[in-house]
Parts: sequence; structure tokens; C-alpha cells
Amino acid sequence: MEARAQRRVAVLSSHLRPIIDSFDKSGVSALNCTSNNGANQETECVFCKIVRGQAPALKVYEDDVCLCILDSNPLSHGHSLIIPKRHFSTLEETPPAIVAAMCSKVPLISKAVMEATGSDSFNLLVNNGAAAGQVIFHTHVHIIPRKASDCLWASESLRRRKLKLDQESMRLAGSIRDRLQFVDNFEDGKGQGSSLIGSS
Amino acid sequence: MEARAQRRVAVLSSHLRPIIDSFDKSGVSALNCTSNNGANQETECVFCKIVRGQAPALKVYEDDVCLCILDSNPLSHGHSLIIPKRHFSTLEETPPAIVAAMCSKVPLISKAVMEATGSDSFNLLVNNGAAAGQVIFHTHVHIIPRKASDCLWASESLRRRKLKLDQESMRLAGSIRDRLQFVDNFEDGKGQGSSLIGSS
Repeated sequence: MEARAQRRVAVLSSHLRPIIDSFDKSGVSALNCTSNNGANQETECVFCKIVRGQAPALKVYEDDVCLCILDSNPLSHGHSLIIPKRHFSTLEETPPAIVAAMCSKVPLISKAVMEATGSDSFNLLVNNGAAAGQVIFHTHVHIIPRKASDCLWASESLRRRKLKLDQESMRLAGSIRDRLQFVDNFEDGKGQGSSLIGSS
Repeated sequence: MEARAQRRVAVLSSHLRPIIDSFDKSGVSALNCTSNNGANQETECVFCKIVRGQAPALKVYEDDVCLCILDSNPLSHGHSLIIPKRHFSTLEETPPAIVAAMCSKVPLISKAVMEATGSDSFNLLVNNGAAAGQVIFHTHVHIIPRKASDCLWASESLRRRKLKLDQESMRLAGSIRDRLQFVDNFEDGKGQGSSLIGSS
């Protein structure tokens, strides 16, 4: 029950305070950034070095929370990275307020990147965790400009399997909902409208 | 100059009001959602139908702004989609406040999805625009749980080219900055620390 209560508080907190808390009101500096994984990570982290001005990068945007730089090994012309100024190893360790602040800039930055590169599309990508291809363990969001027939990659062409309408899928959805306490909404009668098995 | 002024206002607005504006304070409903592309899109949009309860889906999370459902054609077990309740065709058309609200839930939802599927990693992906693989033109964020050796895809293994430290890269970064009015910060002496050509 304690874990349930903690998760409920986490859900409520992220819902009620998605932007105004979590980062130091005195200003964000990688010099005094903290991490669950110890101070050494920030000392050696290439993104922290860029934030501190100790490593070079081509910056295209900066505010108090994050900066955007050109990727040094781009997948396409204009491939950019949004990185928070404070060090967080992974996205799930990054406070919701920081994620919100970073991602709220995506519409603006992506438009500028597309205009500057003559692209009309882009992929937003986070590789989170080693198995997902994360190499630098400082949260970062890729903006990858795309053009028709650029032959870069097509996630839509990857093998997908129709979601089976069976007990396993029901259990899976229930298992996720339970961890998000969404089950309470169902019990309250909220969200029943389209909660049945089916396709999206 | 007028375009510059408009962009400056857009930057300031997204910075100052990333979460509190943009969506109808009377509540979000797909029934009265609006789009630059006309009402017909929402009538036929499968995600709008799910929001209205007119099409089935396995929901795992819901709040006033967005809901999260299991993808009907998953790339991996637990592949989920976060979709805003209002209809916006693409991410760059989605108000920063909505993007922030959706993305602020990613740490929480991704943790729940990983726990429920026994994964330790995930890819966050948005295919934005036809050339980037977007199929359903209602903004949505993929959360794709990953496991070591799942052989799903490896964006890090794709062909990348070292960013050349030449005038072209400088011009590209300058062109993006100019569209974001970041050039003004440089002129004011802000952000000079790591603005040199180099690697990220």
C-alpha cells in the first residue's frame, strides 16, 4: 500500500506541477548539478562539459533549462539535440518539469530546423537505456530532419504485429494502469468510454 | 522585421507560458476540438474517435489533456501511444503547452510500461510528417519498450557522418539560431561559452 500511495503522489505531483517545480529556482548550472549517480558522472559527462563551456558545440538555442546543439555525428543535415542543463542519466530519472520545459520547445525548434534545412518532416527520438541505443547517459532528445526518399530509416516498415484481442493484452493494460493508479479512475467510472479491447 | 517580431513573441510565449495557456480552460473535449485543417479531419480521425469513446482502445492512462493507449500494431510488447485529446495534425502545430503536458507524463508512464513488460529501456519516438513515417495525422508520441538483443532496430547503427567543422555547419547553426532569435543572445554576449565549432 505504501508503494501505491507513493505512486499516487507521483501521479498527482506530475499532473499538478508539471512545470513550476523541480529545478533550482536560483538558476540552473551544470557546475552544481546533482545526480543520483554521483558527481563523477557530471565531471566526465560531455554534455555537462558543453553546458559549462568546457567543450565546444554548435548551439542553436538556449534558455535557463536546456540548450539545443547540432549533433556531432548527424543522421541527417540539421540533426539537433535538446539537452537539459542539469545532469540526469535517463528520461525516467528526469523530473517531469524538466521534460515538459524541454519538450515545450520542440514545436518552435523543429520548425526552425526544418526551415533552415528545407525539410518538411522530422523524427523526434529518445534512446533511453542501453538496450534502446543510449550512448551518452545524459538525457537528450534528437530532432532528426527528414525528406522524402532520404532512405534514412522507416520505423513504420519494421515488423509490427496486430495487438491480439485476448486476455494477455487485457492483463498488460491492467498491469500498466495499476502502476499508474489509473485503475482508480475506472473504478470511479471515469475513462470507461473507450476502454474496451480494440484497435488504436 | 515583422516575421522576426512574430518569432520573438513566439519564443517568449513558449518560454513564459509553457503549460498554463493554449487549451480551453473549460475542459478538453474532442467533440469541440478545432484544427487548422478543418472539422472533417477530426470527424474521421481514429484518435479523435477513441477520445470520444466511438472507437475501442486499451487505455492505460488518462488526464484532462491526453490519454495513453496500447498501440494496435505494436513494435514490441507494451508499445504505447500518448495522444492529446484535442486534434492537432503534427507536433509543430501542437501548442507548446499541450506538448509539455503530454511529455511531462513520459517519465511516469514509461516507468510503468517498463515495469509491466520487464523491460529496462525504451525508445520515445514521434514520426512527424509523411517523410518521417507519420501515418495518422493526429499528434502522437510512441513509447516503445526495449530489451537487450530484441533486434528491433538500432538507430545508433545507422550511417552517421562526423559534423564537418566548416563554414557550412556554421551557416546552418546560424540559420537555425536566426529563426529562433537566439542570435540576439549571442549579440548580448550570452551563450558564448561553448558556441565554437566542435563536437557534442
